[in-house]
Amino acid sequence: MRERVERVARSYGSVALLGAVGVPIGVAVGAVDAVFGRTLLAIGDLRATHPALIVCLPAAGALIAWAYLRLGKNTGRGMGLVFDVGHGHEDAIPLRLVPLIMGGTWLTHLCGGSAGREGVAVQIGATLSHWVGQHLPLKNPGNTFLVVGMAAGFAGLFGTPLAATLFALEVLVAGRLEYRALLPSLVAALAASTTSGALGLAKFEVALSAPLTLDAGTLACLLVLGVAFGVVGGGFAWLLGGAKRILGARLENPIVRIVSVGAAVAVCLLALGQGRYAGLGTNLIAASFAEEGSGVLAWDWLLKLALTIATLAAGFQGGEVTPLFAIGATLGATLARPLGMDAGLVAALGYAAVFGSATNTLLAPILIGGEVFGFAYLPAFFLVCSVAYLFNQDKSIYALQERMGSHVSVRK
Amino acid sequence: MRERVERVARSYGSVALLGAVGVPIGVAVGAVDAVFGRTLLAIGDLRATHPALIVCLPAAGALIAWAYLRLGKNTGRGMGLVFDVGHGHEDAIPLRLVPLIMGGTWLTHLCGGSAGREGVAVQIGATLSHWVGQHLPLKNPGNTFLVVGMAAGFAGLFGTPLAATLFALEVLVAGRLEYRALLPSLVAALAASTTSGALGLAKFEVALSAPLTLDAGTLACLLVLGVAFGVVGGGFAWLLGGAKRILGARLENPIVRIVSVGAAVAVCLLALGQGRYAGLGTNLIAASFAEEGSGVLAWDWLLKLALTIATLAAGFQGGEVTPLFAIGATLGATLARPLGMDAGLVAALGYAAVFGSATNTLLAPILIGGEVFGFAYLPAFFLVCSVAYLFNQDKSIYALQERMGSHVSVRK
Repeated sequence: MRERVERVARSYGSVALLGAVGVPIGVAVGAVDAVFGRTLLAIGDLRATHPALIVCLPAAGALIAWAYLRLGKNTGRGMGLVFDVGHGHEDAIPLRLVPLIMGGTWLTHLCGGSAGREGVAVQIGATLSHWVGQHLPLKNPGNTFLVVGMAAGFAGLFGTPLAATLFALEVLVAGRLEYRALLPSLVAALAASTTSGALGLAKFEVALSAPLTLDAGTLACLLVLGVAFGVVGGGFAWLLGGAKRILGARLENPIVRIVSVGAAVAVCLLALGQGRYAGLGTNLIAASFAEEGSGVLAWDWLLKLALTIATLAAGFQGGEVTPLFAIGATLGATLARPLGMDAGLVAALGYAAVFGSATNTLLAPILIGGEVFGFAYLPAFFLVCSVAYLFNQDKSIYALQERMGSHVSVRK
Repeated sequence: MRERVERVARSYGSVALLGAVGVPIGVAVGAVDAVFGRTLLAIGDLRATHPALIVCLPAAGALIAWAYLRLGKNTGRGMGLVFDVGHGHEDAIPLRLVPLIMGGTWLTHLCGGSAGREGVAVQIGATLSHWVGQHLPLKNPGNTFLVVGMAAGFAGLFGTPLAATLFALEVLVAGRLEYRALLPSLVAALAASTTSGALGLAKFEVALSAPLTLDAGTLACLLVLGVAFGVVGGGFAWLLGGAKRILGARLENPIVRIVSVGAAVAVCLLALGQGRYAGLGTNLIAASFAEEGSGVLAWDWLLKLALTIATLAAGFQGGEVTPLFAIGATLGATLARPLGMDAGLVAALGYAAVFGSATNTLLAPILIGGEVFGFAYLPAFFLVCSVAYLFNQDKSIYALQERMGSHVSVRK
């Protein structure tokens, strides 16, 4: 009996200890996120007022590729390296990843590359947290610290701690949740989100006002939307993987690749709407939620998709998620009219569901919907994200994501 | 290319087909749920007005035990059988389970046994749906139809389709989600919930009104509540398992066991509050949400816990979930005062979190919180249910639930 009590106390003690470790990790990662994110937004504003900076994109690319070749070790693998550590195939992430990816992403955005930021924040968080875990006297429990850092990085950047926690728990292996990391991830995500908010990184939020009753007609519309968002998100992941493979094979030298593809991207960015498709795509997101989406062009989502894939396959730095938000929101705003639905609501559903289907995650996009657009709409996000998840052909922008039983092969 | 398109179309086709199969299953299960649930409520009302019926509990027990011995085959294993089929260790669930468990539960409740109903609904749904899956020309994809039936059974009884879907996906193996069954489960849950609602089985809902800001003080309170609910839920599961084991060893004859323990339970039920702790516990739930919880006694949760364990370990039929809701709600209403929090809000948190920690599920209780008490409170449910999940010592009322990496043993 006494032994049993001691065992229980020990296990509660280690849960609590691990939870407590989440606080400093979250604060540190949130602070780095704030520096990274605020600088990135300032750079984006600078470029938006000087679109001519886009002509420097090939030169910026050359600098990025050279820096990674010269100083990068294996950190150029980015999320691939994070996933390999998560699955136990690699042991360490060099700390140099942090300055390299931050600098590379700032440079990419200064010159208008169409890329995101969350991949950067997640990698920064994972690198710092995993490093902390390796240097603590605790026996490092598998990938726990890595997962905690991913949650903190995502939460600090977007101010969405619940979505960030579930994203980190579910993204490594589709169909499995890394519950061992639940408490420290949640604590770190809350701490990171609070810290970055206190340091002035504003959370993107939209208060939807459209009423929502789930009658048969609305359910049918949500089903159609789920299929569309699933196909587009899965298509994004599939095309990105294909473009990386083909460009990597045709243009083996990374400097040649980034300069030549970067030049083509720069021409397109300037020719198509004078920088409308450059950078994160927050301009497209803002347009989707303003004035019933009337500022959105029907082809916005497609051009943003194509230029983001080209930018990332060329070798520029940044993430995929904010462009995915933009693709989903503009696609949603475009689909709202023929379906006779509120443009803001459908844009919100697309914002979440395209992100989910491209990353092959289910719970994170549902919670993104709640945390960004209000929890009252959670049932609609649940339905659309579920359908989207099932219609993405099991594709993921994370090539090394593992699967526990595919959700598309329902026949034996 | 053509082959690829055909493969994609085939996979989309089978996802859609499986989704469509969810509709008739959901409607059928929802209809059975409505008959079962409405009859059960009527029986509960009858007993509440005639508490003297409780003296018949031992006799009812004898009848139930005799019926299972005589006619039950292996269906007396109840949820154990469902889990064995879910894990592929058993192949079929005899259809006779449905009338036996419905009759046994009605009889248990007529005579005031402290038991639930969801285990019954889940077993009915699983039995019917798995039977359908075995008789369709489809190759039955593993445990998909079983999971679909569990979702439909839960949703039809409680009117909470989202929580029901996640419950069915996550309960078989803690840490794994059966995503293959996501779409048909969601469709079946929506269909079952709509059907049972249309047939007059009312959904239990409470509109909370307490404001909720997650400041540091509130977060600390939620942490304390999560630990308390986790310990009580895990304790319930541990004590129930122990009581079943000990009574099974001491009183090997199931008729002797149910009659003798049933007699003791009947005496306690009559002596302690004249039936206050009999049946589902909806009276305790109602008291928790009325008049700032002033009708709740500080020991309500403990007596309900003890008498439910005794009833179920004796061999009476029914589920655990509604008593768990009652235990959590009364415990919450009791803890609200010392914490200086709103009684209704804390009762709601307990309602969800004790259910989650006793069933060792995380997502289902969070969604129960949203669907029963309003999605605006989802962040609070997320935090409390997460902590509770981590403080339940990995116990579950489902003895055959499997684990993917325990969440309590954080040290290697």
